[in-house]
Amino acid sequence: MKVFNDLADFSVDEISALLTLASRLDKHPEPEALRGKVLSLLFLSPSLRTLASFQAAMIRLGGGSFVISPDMSIHGLETRPGIVMDGVAAEHIREAVPVIASYGDAIGIRAFAERKSIEYDLAETEFHSMTSLIDKPWINMESAINHPCQSLADWKTMDDLKIPANGGKFVLSWAYHPKPLPLAVPCATLHMAAFRGMDVTVLRPAGFELPEAIMQKARAAAASSGGSIRETDDRSDAMEGAQVIYAKSWSSTKFYGDRNGDQNLRRELDHWCVDNPWFDDAAPDCRFMHCLPVRRGVVVSDRVLDGPRSVVIHEARNRMFAQMAVLHQMLGRKS
Amino acid sequence: MKVFNDLADFSVDEISALLTLASRLDKHPEPEALRGKVLSLLFLSPSLRTLASFQAAMIRLGGGSFVISPDMSIHGLETRPGIVMDGVAAEHIREAVPVIASYGDAIGIRAFAERKSIEYDLAETEFHSMTSLIDKPWINMESAINHPCQSLADWKTMDDLKIPANGGKFVLSWAYHPKPLPLAVPCATLHMAAFRGMDVTVLRPAGFELPEAIMQKARAAAASSGGSIRETDDRSDAMEGAQVIYAKSWSSTKFYGDRNGDQNLRRELDHWCVDNPWFDDAAPDCRFMHCLPVRRGVVVSDRVLDGPRSVVIHEARNRMFAQMAVLHQMLGRKS
Amino acid sequence: MKVFNDLADFSVDEISALLTLASRLDKHPEPEALRGKVLSLLFLSPSLRTLASFQAAMIRLGGGSFVISPDMSIHGLETRPGIVMDGVAAEHIREAVPVIASYGDAIGIRAFAERKSIEYDLAETEFHSMTSLIDKPWINMESAINHPCQSLADWKTMDDLKIPANGGKFVLSWAYHPKPLPLAVPCATLHMAAFRGMDVTVLRPAGFELPEAIMQKARAAAASSGGSIRETDDRSDAMEGAQVIYAKSWSSTKFYGDRNGDQNLRRELDHWCVDNPWFDDAAPDCRFMHCLPVRRGVVVSDRVLDGPRSVVIHEARNRMFAQMAVLHQMLGRKS
Repeated sequence: MKVFNDLADFSVDEISALLTLASRLDKHPEPEALRGKVLSLLFLSPSLRTLASFQAAMIRLGGGSFVISPDMSIHGLETRPGIVMDGVAAEHIREAVPVIASYGDAIGIRAFAERKSIEYDLAETEFHSMTSLIDKPWINMESAINHPCQSLADWKTMDDLKIPANGGKFVLSWAYHPKPLPLAVPCATLHMAAFRGMDVTVLRPAGFELPEAIMQKARAAAASSGGSIRETDDRSDAMEGAQVIYAKSWSSTKFYGDRNGDQNLRRELDHWCVDNPWFDDAAPDCRFMHCLPVRRGVVVSDRVLDGPRSVVIHEARNRMFAQMAVLHQMLGRKS
Repeated sequence: MKVFNDLADFSVDEISALLTLASRLDKHPEPEALRGKVLSLLFLSPSLRTLASFQAAMIRLGGGSFVISPDMSIHGLETRPGIVMDGVAAEHIREAVPVIASYGDAIGIRAFAERKSIEYDLAETEFHSMTSLIDKPWINMESAINHPCQSLADWKTMDDLKIPANGGKFVLSWAYHPKPLPLAVPCATLHMAAFRGMDVTVLRPAGFELPEAIMQKARAAAASSGGSIRETDDRSDAMEGAQVIYAKSWSSTKFYGDRNGDQNLRRELDHWCVDNPWFDDAAPDCRFMHCLPVRRGVVVSDRVLDGPRSVVIHEARNRMFAQMAVLHQMLGRKS
Repeated sequence: MKVFNDLADFSVDEISALLTLASRLDKHPEPEALRGKVLSLLFLSPSLRTLASFQAAMIRLGGGSFVISPDMSIHGLETRPGIVMDGVAAEHIREAVPVIASYGDAIGIRAFAERKSIEYDLAETEFHSMTSLIDKPWINMESAINHPCQSLADWKTMDDLKIPANGGKFVLSWAYHPKPLPLAVPCATLHMAAFRGMDVTVLRPAGFELPEAIMQKARAAAASSGGSIRETDDRSDAMEGAQVIYAKSWSSTKFYGDRNGDQNLRRELDHWCVDNPWFDDAAPDCRFMHCLPVRRGVVVSDRVLDGPRSVVIHEARNRMFAQMAVLHQMLGRKS
């Protein structure tokens, strides 16, 4: 594997093989697999789970990693092409990215969306401007509209919990949050559940529809895997028979990049906090999923998050094993 | 070993076994002992020695660690239960701690006292709210009133220097500092010296008495080990025949959590700076100990700190070996 | 090897042996060479390449490292001797440096020049006040007037590219930058090229002459290696037949430590930006070198930096292999 950027680049069989490897590495550690191998970790956006789980993954496989982040070493990295750098920025990504990549056997990159123009972000313009500079294997650690490591971990979590693929009912629900958040997780999650062959409902208020390009990609994945996609703003309808509710807040797409427009719409929606009544018509063992971090009492109630439905810690832990499988395929000795 | 939280949880024989192991690992490295093992390091309070020595310890044993700290990845971690998180904090410890723990084979946690209420801090309320969320082996890297890693290193340092246990005279002395500092080190040190069987004198000005619960715990340890405990504000009396003076500044306990009250008391006490005359009636080879960081010319004079009495670098170095022994017992393959 | 502080401490044969080792470690990894060994990394000045490349180097050799930096753990480390520490600084280098060193098998230190007095900086007064506290092997990761790791990597880069040593024409050119930058890289580079036996021209505007002590040291190196040194402010003359131009901005030495004086001089010099016309009379395959970070459109034009002359990424990557060789000689088992 040279690039891990999007689950859509793989077949369902290839995903299954990755998940089988992830489970094997959980049960049977291989502390010699990546002996002396180095993963470069470049964070242009903040991180906790990704930062910790990738470092832990490399140690467990016998290698190691180093971290470069704006907090530590990069003050105002310039990204614009053709600029005269007489301001604050002391270094351009055109040097920084290839240099950081050159010290590793692979590199992981995180850079959130700029969130000014939805077309710009959907095209992954900024992320691509960095990954095009790399001549090593690389991993998307969250870009403007994707988060394949999270999706691979979530897929594994549903497999671990024996939540059905074909025929399984998956609700991706918008939730309230005081700030407009990136589209990466909802876009990746929608595609993942569809690609797993599930019957997926996107539950969201008006103004928060996912972009049509994302819906189309998910429909194609559903078609190939025997799943289905629908959208609604009707909670009862969405939750009927649901086996999973995956909650996540995201920016208004109607007012994308327009902070005031987004706030005016969002202000009325603070009742979109997942709580016990949401589960009235769901399957009895319906699970609550979230990628974390999550705001308690805002996105979800304490009683749901602390109750038996919640599998958020399981999801977070699976990040490590999913990424170990990716790293093992990417950097392990070929037998 | 599942938990390393307090020397009082161990017998003197168990401490001795740890220190023997620490010395063995110094002389005979075991770079395979913890191959592929991961230590999660969660710092909610700043650190230099602990940060460096735990990372070095894991590398020397063949494993590794990752660090999560407020500087890096955690901006306003919420600790209050039942809160609606609509402010700055993006994540609650109820998620963050179990997730960070889930990536390691063990986790070390540092969180200083809140220093509003002495009862609250003595009960380790905040620290316990975090460690109760962990289902892995864990290590106290300094809590409101404890610092077992420092105490284990200090015990080893006195053993290394052949300072007598039973019959050894140990003075724990308050020292001046412009700011009120936590009680963790003085409380842990008092108990450690008593538990080692030494004759311990707490030398402190009025208003800086250690809490009665801490004194009682130390008296019990002294009774079981053949040591003794007394308190005084008379320096000459305290220092007579002393083989060790362990200096440390701490908050007023009379004005605990009351910054103005503490300052008014403290203001008059800047002559509590350990200097040569303090040693007039001490044993000729009386040692100077301190956990570091130490303010020169404030807590102790340059000539004492740079002179032959000072063993502060020795203590700091022993942090690494003491912690290697703890990690080896916690995570090493059982034979 | 106990200390790696200055290429001048080694013979040309010793440098050659290091570079041969660096190339061997690139082609034939030795992930067991430094098993369980620890490198302490102390950064008192910011870093990206050094931070990343030393961590990667230790992982590739089977050991590891930890990082202490002002961003992370050190807030106002005191450096002045004999001071009463009643201000902000909580720790003095007299404790911090030996403690940090004590956790490693070797330590790397970075501390930029104070840039108040040129005599003070040329004497490496501040750097020496730290390294004199270390009883372990140590590495200069950039001091006031030296950067031996960069120079070793640059030497290797010229060897890799078969740029002639004796008879090779090397131009070290000042370049514009909005701020006065340290002298470390130009001083180290001048000596390195001379020591490699090249014919070196220092091209710089009036007021930016390198210090006479540095010129003398370079002349001595040139004399011993069969090279030569000259200075000019005439670009055409300097560039004639050049096989390498190494661009770097540095402080005015005439107005050293005088920010206004430096700015007045510098203001008129923004045409000192390396661009295609500079190469009119150079050798056809003349290379462009720079230690990075570099400001595009300020120090060098995009077309030079993105064109075939530029070897800046190659130089940066060689940092890792050069440092692996140093670490291998310093910490490897002697056979």
